[in-house]
Amino acid sequence: MADDITAPEENEKSLKGHEPSDFEAAEETLEPTLLEEWSHLYVEDKVLRFRSLDNDEAEDLLLALPAREQALLFQEFSRAERRLWIRFLAPDDATDLIQELPEEMRAEVLNLVDETGRREITALLAYKEDEAGGLMSPRFPRVRPDMLVAEAIRYVRQQSQVVEAVHYIYVLDSAQHLLGVVALRNLFVSPGDKKVSEIMETELVTVPAEMDQEAVSRLFTQHRWSALPVVDETGRMKGVVTVDDILDVSQEEATEDIQKLGGTEALDAPYPDVPLREMIRKRAGWLMILFVGEMFTATAMSAFEDEIARAVVLALFIPLIISSGGNSGSQATTLIIRAIALGELKLADWWRVFLREVVTGTALGLILASIGMARILLWPNRSDIYTEHYLLVAFTVASSLIGVVLFGSIIGSMLPFLLRKLKLDPASASAPMVATLVDVTGLVIYFSCARIWLHGTLL
Amino acid sequence: MADDITAPEENEKSLKGHEPSDFEAAEETLEPTLLEEWSHLYVEDKVLRFRSLDNDEAEDLLLALPAREQALLFQEFSRAERRLWIRFLAPDDATDLIQELPEEMRAEVLNLVDETGRREITALLAYKEDEAGGLMSPRFPRVRPDMLVAEAIRYVRQQSQVVEAVHYIYVLDSAQHLLGVVALRNLFVSPGDKKVSEIMETELVTVPAEMDQEAVSRLFTQHRWSALPVVDETGRMKGVVTVDDILDVSQEEATEDIQKLGGTEALDAPYPDVPLREMIRKRAGWLMILFVGEMFTATAMSAFEDEIARAVVLALFIPLIISSGGNSGSQATTLIIRAIALGELKLADWWRVFLREVVTGTALGLILASIGMARILLWPNRSDIYTEHYLLVAFTVASSLIGVVLFGSIIGSMLPFLLRKLKLDPASASAPMVATLVDVTGLVIYFSCARIWLHGTLL
Repeated sequence: MADDITAPEENEKSLKGHEPSDFEAAEETLEPTLLEEWSHLYVEDKVLRFRSLDNDEAEDLLLALPAREQALLFQEFSRAERRLWIRFLAPDDATDLIQELPEEMRAEVLNLVDETGRREITALLAYKEDEAGGLMSPRFPRVRPDMLVAEAIRYVRQQSQVVEAVHYIYVLDSAQHLLGVVALRNLFVSPGDKKVSEIMETELVTVPAEMDQEAVSRLFTQHRWSALPVVDETGRMKGVVTVDDILDVSQEEATEDIQKLGGTEALDAPYPDVPLREMIRKRAGWLMILFVGEMFTATAMSAFEDEIARAVVLALFIPLIISSGGNSGSQATTLIIRAIALGELKLADWWRVFLREVVTGTALGLILASIGMARILLWPNRSDIYTEHYLLVAFTVASSLIGVVLFGSIIGSMLPFLLRKLKLDPASASAPMVATLVDVTGLVIYFSCARIWLHGTLL
Repeated sequence: MADDITAPEENEKSLKGHEPSDFEAAEETLEPTLLEEWSHLYVEDKVLRFRSLDNDEAEDLLLALPAREQALLFQEFSRAERRLWIRFLAPDDATDLIQELPEEMRAEVLNLVDETGRREITALLAYKEDEAGGLMSPRFPRVRPDMLVAEAIRYVRQQSQVVEAVHYIYVLDSAQHLLGVVALRNLFVSPGDKKVSEIMETELVTVPAEMDQEAVSRLFTQHRWSALPVVDETGRMKGVVTVDDILDVSQEEATEDIQKLGGTEALDAPYPDVPLREMIRKRAGWLMILFVGEMFTATAMSAFEDEIARAVVLALFIPLIISSGGNSGSQATTLIIRAIALGELKLADWWRVFLREVVTGTALGLILASIGMARILLWPNRSDIYTEHYLLVAFTVASSLIGVVLFGSIIGSMLPFLLRKLKLDPASASAPMVATLVDVTGLVIYFSCARIWLHGTLL
């Protein structure tokens, strides 16, 4: 009977992401699809659909939703529903939810939790959302160092319903100081009459409760643990951060960096959920700043108005020159920002990077310069378009390209370090910002080259 | 005695990431620092430093290193060292390592593994690295459906030393078909004389072995599990993917997207580790393509050479206009690419996004247009710089800005959808690529506006 379920035709379904809910019912349950279309629903529909689910389905869905979405539901819920669901959530999830609620609702929802939970949540609320303390769960399996292995296994079994991470068992003294860690699998295979203190690992990596979530995330990628203990400044264990919390963090941080790189403020919500007004506000800010910065190009250009009037051919290459600088700057800045975010580069590396980018920028400049030269020199009606001094024009364009691409690579790679040095977010050095900086300088480089090469002929 | 270790002054150290290796030795162990400076070492130094570690330290370090770095060490190792360390690694990690080795070394290293391991690794090598099958571990805790809970606990205890994920226990029939899952904590709290089949969860989300790692990663972020079973097309369980594997995947994918967005080929290695030659090659490719694309600006400009010659004032605003289009396009494209990568937007959403971007683009265009107007109209010596027709010039600039910013937002947001439709990677729609597309069109828009507004006066 049980084997029926794995017959090939049945499993076609399971491959699509779900298995029949029991051996009789062939109908698939709703959550995965509902979860997938969730972000496309109106709030009222979300509440209706949530209420239409049976208890199990509703539990699964609620757990799968991000805190922001849970909070949205809570604002529409009746008091009874709020009471039911806030008690269902683990304290760290409940804390995240409460932090997403409007200020005036928080105390009310907190009061719906039983006393233990309320104490745990209140403690968690003291931490900032983006710190280790704000990520951790206060419910972890703990044992005493003088317990025997057999006792410890029994004790962990009793705790296993309420705790979050069971890969590691934490050994604490009576004042909750962290003494050691035992992996569950080691506990299982150790002789029952050994003491926990004899088998525990005492070389620990711990996370201070105030550590920034980005740093915690780097610790996890570097060391590949599935959970890390969080301790206060006196070494008391406060909770445990698990790798699944970090997955969210790492995606959030990457999203923020990507959005900043693209020259927007971080959206804080999925694209389709951001109200149009806010979308415009978040994009207008940087766009206006960049626009004002870019106005200096008009100022720079007006300084060279005479040159343009005398040699209109110079105007032809303006977009080509400045965009090449912007593109090489954009490459350098994204590579460096990501390397800094992943901890591959530190502030002290700036000089090594500088030297590398000088070489890279020069090489890239030479490549583009030769393409540019070829384009001008091999064009069929070159002297019609580029005047009879087309060779000099070609030299002007080529030398400007080398200068601009080199300059773009240097600015693009150094700006993230400079921002880091000033304790600002390196990711604020967006590609458009680098492009803007390079545009103004690019024009100066271009017209300076023109003055040198074309002096006495076109100029 | 055990309590000493948590005395405040001792714990200062632990907060820095590490605890004394035992109660006597106050010296900190080497790995965290060595791990941190790893990427800055020369290969020869890596081997020397690795060999200088004691066995425990070497184990920890090797496990923490990415497969690429492990493979680097292996190429320098003696046969005895290779044999020792390849047998130490879990089959999925050994597989990753072998895939990073040069072709000619692979068979040799594989032959150093014992027979069971070799069979497992060979099976894993059949999957692509970026598929669920390439990520999974073939060692997971399994029980039979007709086992009693008490038996199952004993059985899992026996397996716990060799398996990877112990959060979930998988229930398989004799042909390895996946029937259900029991969370370890549920196994613990269930009465010992119940059958496993009575307490197992049969509503399963399974992952086909061929599923792309990006899709697997999305499943994990959506559903917040710590492990998912991987099955073949007949429903046989092949392995388990755990969330810590996914953390690496999610960071890799984000890094790739960020690098592509910046207009580079994905680097495949940390910035400081990429040889200069390869760095130049990976950046030159796109830079050349963009440069050739940007050459059309010169062509477009030459079509308007007469206009520029007659009204040099028009040249002043060229960088401002085209960069505004590029910036708004860069914003739109990064937002959409990230939303697609996170599964927030699907191909079918393109029309909704289009409408949104038309509104957003128009609003942003109006904002920049008013700043541009203000700049020209309020400038002290406006008629010197912008000619006596400065009002008409202002209208030209303002209307071009609206057109260019709107066009940039539309191109930037639609290009990722178009690439997706063509089964290409949406992230290839880099910010520089959008900027290049918008530059050429921006010039056409600008000079068309000029012809309309300035006809009969300056033109």
